[in-house]
Amino acid sequence: MDKKRSDPGFRVRGFRAGAVASGIKKGGKKDLALIVSDVPAAVAGVFTRNAVRAAPVLLSIERVKKGSARGVIINSGNANACTGKRGLRLAGDMAKAAEKNLRVKKGDMLVASTGVIGVPLPAGKIISSLPGLVRSLRPDGWMDAAEAIMTTDAFPKTASGRKKINGRSINIVGIAKGAGMICPDMATMLAFFATDAPVDPESLKKALLSATDESFNRITVDNDTSTNDCVFIFANGLAGGGSLAAGGAGFNQFRELLSGLSLELSHMIVRDGEGATKFTEIEVAGCRSRSDAEAAARRIAGSLLVKTALFGKDPNWGRIMAAVGACGIRLKEDRVDISINGVKVVKNGVDTGMEKAAAAAMKKREIKLMVDIKLGRGGARLWTSDLSYDYVRINSSYRS
Amino acid sequence: MDKKRSDPGFRVRGFRAGAVASGIKKGGKKDLALIVSDVPAAVAGVFTRNAVRAAPVLLSIERVKKGSARGVIINSGNANACTGKRGLRLAGDMAKAAEKNLRVKKGDMLVASTGVIGVPLPAGKIISSLPGLVRSLRPDGWMDAAEAIMTTDAFPKTASGRKKINGRSINIVGIAKGAGMICPDMATMLAFFATDAPVDPESLKKALLSATDESFNRITVDNDTSTNDCVFIFANGLAGGGSLAAGGAGFNQFRELLSGLSLELSHMIVRDGEGATKFTEIEVAGCRSRSDAEAAARRIAGSLLVKTALFGKDPNWGRIMAAVGACGIRLKEDRVDISINGVKVVKNGVDTGMEKAAAAAMKKREIKLMVDIKLGRGGARLWTSDLSYDYVRINSSYRS
Repeated sequence: MDKKRSDPGFRVRGFRAGAVASGIKKGGKKDLALIVSDVPAAVAGVFTRNAVRAAPVLLSIERVKKGSARGVIINSGNANACTGKRGLRLAGDMAKAAEKNLRVKKGDMLVASTGVIGVPLPAGKIISSLPGLVRSLRPDGWMDAAEAIMTTDAFPKTASGRKKINGRSINIVGIAKGAGMICPDMATMLAFFATDAPVDPESLKKALLSATDESFNRITVDNDTSTNDCVFIFANGLAGGGSLAAGGAGFNQFRELLSGLSLELSHMIVRDGEGATKFTEIEVAGCRSRSDAEAAARRIAGSLLVKTALFGKDPNWGRIMAAVGACGIRLKEDRVDISINGVKVVKNGVDTGMEKAAAAAMKKREIKLMVDIKLGRGGARLWTSDLSYDYVRINSSYRS
Repeated sequence: MDKKRSDPGFRVRGFRAGAVASGIKKGGKKDLALIVSDVPAAVAGVFTRNAVRAAPVLLSIERVKKGSARGVIINSGNANACTGKRGLRLAGDMAKAAEKNLRVKKGDMLVASTGVIGVPLPAGKIISSLPGLVRSLRPDGWMDAAEAIMTTDAFPKTASGRKKINGRSINIVGIAKGAGMICPDMATMLAFFATDAPVDPESLKKALLSATDESFNRITVDNDTSTNDCVFIFANGLAGGGSLAAGGAGFNQFRELLSGLSLELSHMIVRDGEGATKFTEIEVAGCRSRSDAEAAARRIAGSLLVKTALFGKDPNWGRIMAAVGACGIRLKEDRVDISINGVKVVKNGVDTGMEKAAAAAMKKREIKLMVDIKLGRGGARLWTSDLSYDYVRINSSYRS
């Protein structure tokens, strides 16, 4: 891999991005973003599993099915969720206005929204902002677009990477948003990837599913699953050469590049978790199965008592034991080991007397909790933030 | 029912309770309680479903099996959980010391502990406090005992009731503790009931299961399930007369009296939820099944975003919709109705424009959230508290 870092000047052949302030957000903040490929691109998407799905999600699910699109228009400040038939119509209007202004085919633009639920989308503001939005498009406009999709995010999230695959230089850029309502089954998060790799839609979907499973589906801030989550990838093939098809030469390299960027963006979301003071990796090993390990890791990551202990720098391993015990997997209490940043605080289910060293370890901003069940070979990793006063402040006053 | 209120002078024939400060808790606070029947009593218990169970839970599970006991000794300030074989031995020592000082048969006393996990039980303090503890026993000692079992509780929790059943006056008194780590599948809570009703152990267990299922198993403060939860009931039969057996005359009246007191105590736990500023009843109706309704109610009650909105007095029904959508039950978004203290904020999945009235309703201390799925006849109720700054304060500094 030649490079894999956020780079504001990063470009992907044939893609442009841009953003403007349409007036949905207060204070002249950017709230409308556009990503577009100069030529038709293969497309794949992953969507929230919430039964209550926002209008833009419903529309985009339909449009992704044909496997080809030109790009996506995204607004922040309004989720266009729980808005009934009118919301669906307005999501369609938003896509149509983008298509008209970009002079692309009807049905070629996807839509995404994020923000407050249940408030009618101010589609007029979006439609009248479209000429300016199209003028804002630039090959290096990714940072602007990342900024425009923020809600409670503290910083814009971008990641980019380049890799020689089958002799060609392949570029991928990704942007994401998300800080609250973050849960393992996707979240109040959006992510968009653009690549010049030649990949067919089926293979693209495989790469995307594999990447999200190990990244965006493995993070949790507050266990809530949003109505609006989606991750899209557009592949316009302008890097040239033969298709990187699943199972064929170079596909795994492409998948790994995408997975690396997904992991990078998903960790940014956890670091930006609402009120977060800790970035915590939870690893559970030694389970009878991988799904057991996942269940344990999710229960630990979801425990308010574990999260407040993290915030309080308290190596309160009893809360970790209680969470593991409550998750429903098979375990033997007298086998469990727990360590915090390498300090073994529990061995075979009981205290090791390392409290002082563990308390020092808890002062770090990056925490690694390791739980070994010692019953098998199943393992899983998950990333989460802590629960602080600021989380409560942000979420008790979100709409005021 | 002649009476059903907490009454510090309440008595149950043949039962005495008492408490002392043994020095486990700092500042001379009461931390050791004793409940004892003058004669052998039928006993039933309900225990935590956590796979990690504290030593006193393991010991009491065994002892409850024989269906008869004389009482229970309870300490706060130390959970005697995750303490290995040594913890089991100390739980046995604690019971034995109580039995010796009370001059009752070996194996006739149950044990319960609550407090910090993973710290060896200071059994010496308990054993040397036993003579004083026995001297403290009084027929009206329930309030003292309720005080001694508190941890982060803000107030002692007692409930008592009397009812004429089959011509006899039956008394029940209950005490409980719990404020954090409260979750529907039992919690960091203990509850103890004493009754003079003549009930056989099997019937007593039926009455207790039915009472806890609708009360202690329907409350949630923070979704965490503890290692130490138990609910015990002792029935010494001193009210006289024939046995109130399941299926027989008067049993349902007894069960209802017990259920009423359980509900009362469980609501006290929610009102005392760590940092709680709201007492919220969540009712989900119109589901295809009762278990669907329970799943939805639990997801709403467990949502940090719903809980922080409650704290912020924000009628943010989008978070309720998102929680219902995420719980995995079948629903049609365009049928869902939501009301807050009787103000219908969502009808058929969309906003009703009643935001102002709903905001006024959210200012009350008692909140009733009603969600109607309108697909069937399954319903469920659950009680929960909100998530405040104080919850974070209490739990991030619990051990410091």
